[in-house]
Amino acid sequence: VNELGQQQSALKLALVKWIVTFLVGFLTGMVALFIDFVVKKLTKLKFDTVEDSILQCSEDGCLVVPLLYLLLFNVGFVIVASCLVVIEPIAGGSGIPEIKCYLNGVKVPRVGRLLTLVSKSVGVLFSVAGGLFVGKEGPMIHSGAIIGAGVPQFQSIAFKKVNLKKYSFFRTDRDKRDFVSGGAAAGVAAAFGAPIGGVLFSLEEGCSFWNQSLTWRTFFCSMAATYTLNFFLSGIDSESWGYFYLPGLINFGVFKCTNELRIDCRLWDITDLAIFVVMGFLGGLMGALFNTINTAITKHRMKHLNKKHKLFRILEAALVAAVTTSVTFGASMALGECSEIPTNFVNGTSSSIEDTVRTYFCPDGYYNDMATLFFNSQEEAIKQLFHQPGTDGFSLRTLGLFTLFFFFLACWTYGTNVPSGLFVPCLLCGAAYGRFVARLLVLLGYGNQAIHSGTFALVGAAAFLGGVVRMTISLTVILIESTNEISYGLPLMLVLMVAKWSGDLFNEGLYDIHIKLRGVPLLEWEVPTGMERLKAEDIMERKLHFLYPRTRVTSIVQILRTTAHNAFPIVSIIEDRHQQVVNSSNMDEEEPHSPTEQNIPKNVPLRMDGLILRSQLVTLLKKGAMHEEHHTRTSQFNLSYEEMTEDYPRYPDIYDVTKSQNLNQSKLVDVVPYMNPCPYTVYPTTPVPQVFNLFRSMGLRHLPVVSHEGQHTERGRMGDNRSVRLSV
Amino acid sequence: VNELGQQQSALKLALVKWIVTFLVGFLTGMVALFIDFVVKKLTKLKFDTVEDSILQCSEDGCLVVPLLYLLLFNVGFVIVASCLVVIEPIAGGSGIPEIKCYLNGVKVPRVGRLLTLVSKSVGVLFSVAGGLFVGKEGPMIHSGAIIGAGVPQFQSIAFKKVNLKKYSFFRTDRDKRDFVSGGAAAGVAAAFGAPIGGVLFSLEEGCSFWNQSLTWRTFFCSMAATYTLNFFLSGIDSESWGYFYLPGLINFGVFKCTNELRIDCRLWDITDLAIFVVMGFLGGLMGALFNTINTAITKHRMKHLNKKHKLFRILEAALVAAVTTSVTFGASMALGECSEIPTNFVNGTSSSIEDTVRTYFCPDGYYNDMATLFFNSQEEAIKQLFHQPGTDGFSLRTLGLFTLFFFFLACWTYGTNVPSGLFVPCLLCGAAYGRFVARLLVLLGYGNQAIHSGTFALVGAAAFLGGVVRMTISLTVILIESTNEISYGLPLMLVLMVAKWSGDLFNEGLYDIHIKLRGVPLLEWEVPTGMERLKAEDIMERKLHFLYPRTRVTSIVQILRTTAHNAFPIVSIIEDRHQQVVNSSNMDEEEPHSPTEQNIPKNVPLRMDGLILRSQLVTLLKKGAMHEEHHTRTSQFNLSYEEMTEDYPRYPDIYDVTKSQNLNQSKLVDVVPYMNPCPYTVYPTTPVPQVFNLFRSMGLRHLPVVSHEGQHTERGRMGDNRSVRLSV
Repeated sequence: VNELGQQQSALKLALVKWIVTFLVGFLTGMVALFIDFVVKKLTKLKFDTVEDSILQCSEDGCLVVPLLYLLLFNVGFVIVASCLVVIEPIAGGSGIPEIKCYLNGVKVPRVGRLLTLVSKSVGVLFSVAGGLFVGKEGPMIHSGAIIGAGVPQFQSIAFKKVNLKKYSFFRTDRDKRDFVSGGAAAGVAAAFGAPIGGVLFSLEEGCSFWNQSLTWRTFFCSMAATYTLNFFLSGIDSESWGYFYLPGLINFGVFKCTNELRIDCRLWDITDLAIFVVMGFLGGLMGALFNTINTAITKHRMKHLNKKHKLFRILEAALVAAVTTSVTFGASMALGECSEIPTNFVNGTSSSIEDTVRTYFCPDGYYNDMATLFFNSQEEAIKQLFHQPGTDGFSLRTLGLFTLFFFFLACWTYGTNVPSGLFVPCLLCGAAYGRFVARLLVLLGYGNQAIHSGTFALVGAAAFLGGVVRMTISLTVILIESTNEISYGLPLMLVLMVAKWSGDLFNEGLYDIHIKLRGVPLLEWEVPTGMERLKAEDIMERKLHFLYPRTRVTSIVQILRTTAHNAFPIVSIIEDRHQQVVNSSNMDEEEPHSPTEQNIPKNVPLRMDGLILRSQLVTLLKKGAMHEEHHTRTSQFNLSYEEMTEDYPRYPDIYDVTKSQNLNQSKLVDVVPYMNPCPYTVYPTTPVPQVFNLFRSMGLRHLPVVSHEGQHTERGRMGDNRSVRLSV
Repeated sequence: VNELGQQQSALKLALVKWIVTFLVGFLTGMVALFIDFVVKKLTKLKFDTVEDSILQCSEDGCLVVPLLYLLLFNVGFVIVASCLVVIEPIAGGSGIPEIKCYLNGVKVPRVGRLLTLVSKSVGVLFSVAGGLFVGKEGPMIHSGAIIGAGVPQFQSIAFKKVNLKKYSFFRTDRDKRDFVSGGAAAGVAAAFGAPIGGVLFSLEEGCSFWNQSLTWRTFFCSMAATYTLNFFLSGIDSESWGYFYLPGLINFGVFKCTNELRIDCRLWDITDLAIFVVMGFLGGLMGALFNTINTAITKHRMKHLNKKHKLFRILEAALVAAVTTSVTFGASMALGECSEIPTNFVNGTSSSIEDTVRTYFCPDGYYNDMATLFFNSQEEAIKQLFHQPGTDGFSLRTLGLFTLFFFFLACWTYGTNVPSGLFVPCLLCGAAYGRFVARLLVLLGYGNQAIHSGTFALVGAAAFLGGVVRMTISLTVILIESTNEISYGLPLMLVLMVAKWSGDLFNEGLYDIHIKLRGVPLLEWEVPTGMERLKAEDIMERKLHFLYPRTRVTSIVQILRTTAHNAFPIVSIIEDRHQQVVNSSNMDEEEPHSPTEQNIPKNVPLRMDGLILRSQLVTLLKKGAMHEEHHTRTSQFNLSYEEMTEDYPRYPDIYDVTKSQNLNQSKLVDVVPYMNPCPYTVYPTTPVPQVFNLFRSMGLRHLPVVSHEGQHTERGRMGDNRSVRLSV
């Protein structure tokens, strides 16, 4: 291969990478568009039917008819969503815990499959349209991640026969992880119209090594998703194409003062800031309570519900839908108060706010405040709370009751057997809480100056969401971008900071709780407390399973069957102390049987030659890359990189191989050409924080511990053997 | 130390960190305020004087008087700035190359001193007020970084006597780098009102390990700076305190359509996007040309000017000032054209745009377009180009000439002996170029629909600045934040991407060029091309300098004097092959003389025990931590961590120590308690990309190469021994 050819193929690869990145963003945007479009259609159908029957209703008793309609729609939709999740269980929930695990390096089974994408994206349509207190943003992010995992592979599958060699570079876990992180960022970007927030989300939740070009590519992916969605949404909305004015699925609308002069009217000032801090503290407490209750419910579910027949899970989802519907309906009809429809709307946001008020049972010129919140999509309800002008748009009682109902129902809902995001429900609940505080402050006389209730609603939303999920910089940026108002930076940052702090006094973020409940060994940002003073030898896997450079097939099969490790050190016995470099030709004398530690005497000096992966061993066996005992190693044919990675990412199991093939158990396999001869290593006395940093920063999954003398004591795999336990 | 006490002190340390972080942000904001305030005052004084004398002038000949006034002011101011830089040479230029080096791990002498801060921040006042085509943003970022370097140390100096033990954790290079990166982010945040951009700037230019809590702290620092500045600017502006509406020193103003209906009026649409891509390409070419010319000038300056007396450097700066002034004045008077002052201003931005037009020699109701650009601060000129409504605000000839004059003068100016930022001049020059394109397109008939000239100006500005500095994600975000218009995300990203790509065909970014011209070995993001196939043994330092666990003082002094390395491996000779663990008690037999490789026979097996730093050795000598030859090591007193780091960050030189102290040359120093027993290591056969990643991600400065056998072949320091050559 000459220099020029190398440069050209590098350029080609770079180009393919960018094209694939664009495709990931584009498709994520299209999926978001699809979800948004269908949810809107379904919701409109539902509410139109129900509204007609409410408006036709004049007597008290006839309200049963719309309620029945609503129940029928909602329970029906939710059952569809729930069935999809029963088919593909990983599609349940928000998907963010799974993505977090994946980006952290833990393989979660089936998380990136096409079936998961379909179940999730179709399921979330129905769970949202079914009136559950769930969001579509988490599932959107998960969908983006699946697209990121799938597109590069689809490309490599489609072009397999054409041009195998050139595209094989997408066949490592690291490449795949890069695309998944781009897809997740694109999901955030599409959901919130927040491309920068998307990048930061990926970084905060997953990456550990900041790489300029990867980040730039992730940003490009986010932008592609945002503006794909923007282009189509704007085009559909205005029926004139080529414009971009509707970013993201959630659009918080423009925060404006009612007064054009900037001094008299302000979104917030320095005294408000002090109140925001207190609101953040309370929001953190509310979030901690939410997490505690949800943890208890989830544990209960895992203990009792998951053991029973799948039908029970669908029934629970239907029950949640029925209760939610009844509460929604009952509260709107019985507890709503009538507020005057303001006439002095600010231009711009006016139309959408005016359009979505609900006037049930109120005189002309008035609207039913509870129904306005419950009989709209959650996004519209949030906009109502943010932009309904004046402080008296919603009564104190309505806001308080709404917050309470929503809090407990959302808490029950998260973790049910449907695809269910957490962001929007938390934002809505928090917005009601924030608006409640604003109303209260006015009653207490704080509002001499006209305070901007919308700002309080936004701050409340941030406080509660921050208290539940405990994200920091990415959430701040997502909220800044969704509001398109950079001056909210300081209040949002302060509130999220305080909410995280006060929530952390009691428990972890909800995503982390769910990750722990599933028993996934996630590596946090910092060394777990209590481990700072330990050394590598304290946490390493002491039971050493290793292979020799040339190992008998029977031993390989045995070690693959009896252990769950994903990587094995290759060691040689140093027989002659004066012969330092054991070159490969005289390895043929080695004992190739049963390479477990029982068979070799203690204190025999060993030297680590390298590390080989389970997938590589299985592939070698499958391909029959082995030779007769008395032949030299040159008689074994060498497999190319393409042949070795042909099955990526779904390598066969050792049982599949032994079942389908009749392996000659007495042959030898020479692993030297395939092993990684220079893995990162640490000493037994290396402190755990240093080991941890290496593991985290370099994205390792296995880390051999080699003694100072290089050949003497234990070698082992990290005790943090996350992949060992989980990967498939 | 009990558990509770540990937790408490950890909490205290965290609190101190946050307080110090806030202080860094706050002080950076205050310095920005100071610079902004004084520049405004000086500029106003200058222009008022000159304007008065222009307006009094009716005949042609009398224009000499205002020109003389202007020359007097400008040359005088620039001489002051230049003198300050002669006092502290590192204060010259923008400071961003130095910060980039520092964050990359290279110590640049004097870059973080108080004197540098004073020279830089006072110098930039005068160079900007002196009418040079320089910006104050680069120096602002440098100032922020110095504050970040200084505040934690000030704190540790101030509290030294009170509470030495508790605060010693700020005494590592890593801690300091964290604060510097926070300070630099705060500088960006204050300069552009872009806290998120500031964080991304720090990440893009410096960090390699993405750490959630560090990033969050950096964000907090940026926010503190932004809102400190915002608070005071808004307070001074409105004389009513507690509001926040003036973020950043540069405020690009609000981009608005002249038409309230969103469809007819748009900031940009999809066809514009195609033009933007072409503009980005051309901007990249212009940037590459700028870099090429500036490189030639800088080389010339280094070769000829820097060798002569300092006075010549001041004279050059004065000459630049005089030429700039003359061109500015001449072009405004002779080449300006009169445009009508528009009456249908959009509300909001109107007042400031109307205030800053210059009417010299034009009839009532008209303004001189060239003078409007030249006789304003650069920020005001940018605003004029962005917001002067209609496409006919500036004539094609004026825009073309202005772009040309500015391009060449700015190119000459950057690198002169004054503090000089690059951002704002590039933005202004690019904005004129963009507006030129818009005007041209209208003439060519593209503007059937009303195109938004301001958007073209913004895109042009991004294209040219991107072509010069080649920053990617951080520049995009900074520009999005400065315009407070998230919908500009896509055009800005595309333009910057294309500009970087087309510029990279010819040369590197200007900062990188200046770094290279100074001979600083910066580690890029990717492995340098051509090194992908090398191994660690190919690039390692082959001449091995090492110490024994117990070394004679004379040998330590010799090795410290004869080498420039900053870390030395500690090795033992493995004498008895059957005794694998050489424990420390039998090291006393070792030969402690002249530990250089000449003295030991080849092929004697060595084992690396650890790594010790130059600073540690010097401190040991200075404190007299040594013992007699025939005493055991226990007779040597042990120094505490606080004693070892007492001199941080300015450890004495070995020559200082040997001069001031009478060292007993025959005594022995036991380095075992102080060495790092478990440094990260690599094998000689480890591929360079892997070595590079480890080096870059873990922020290493030294990396021992240890052979597989653990004791046999070479051990050495990375060939990438950047700190070795540069640190002081």
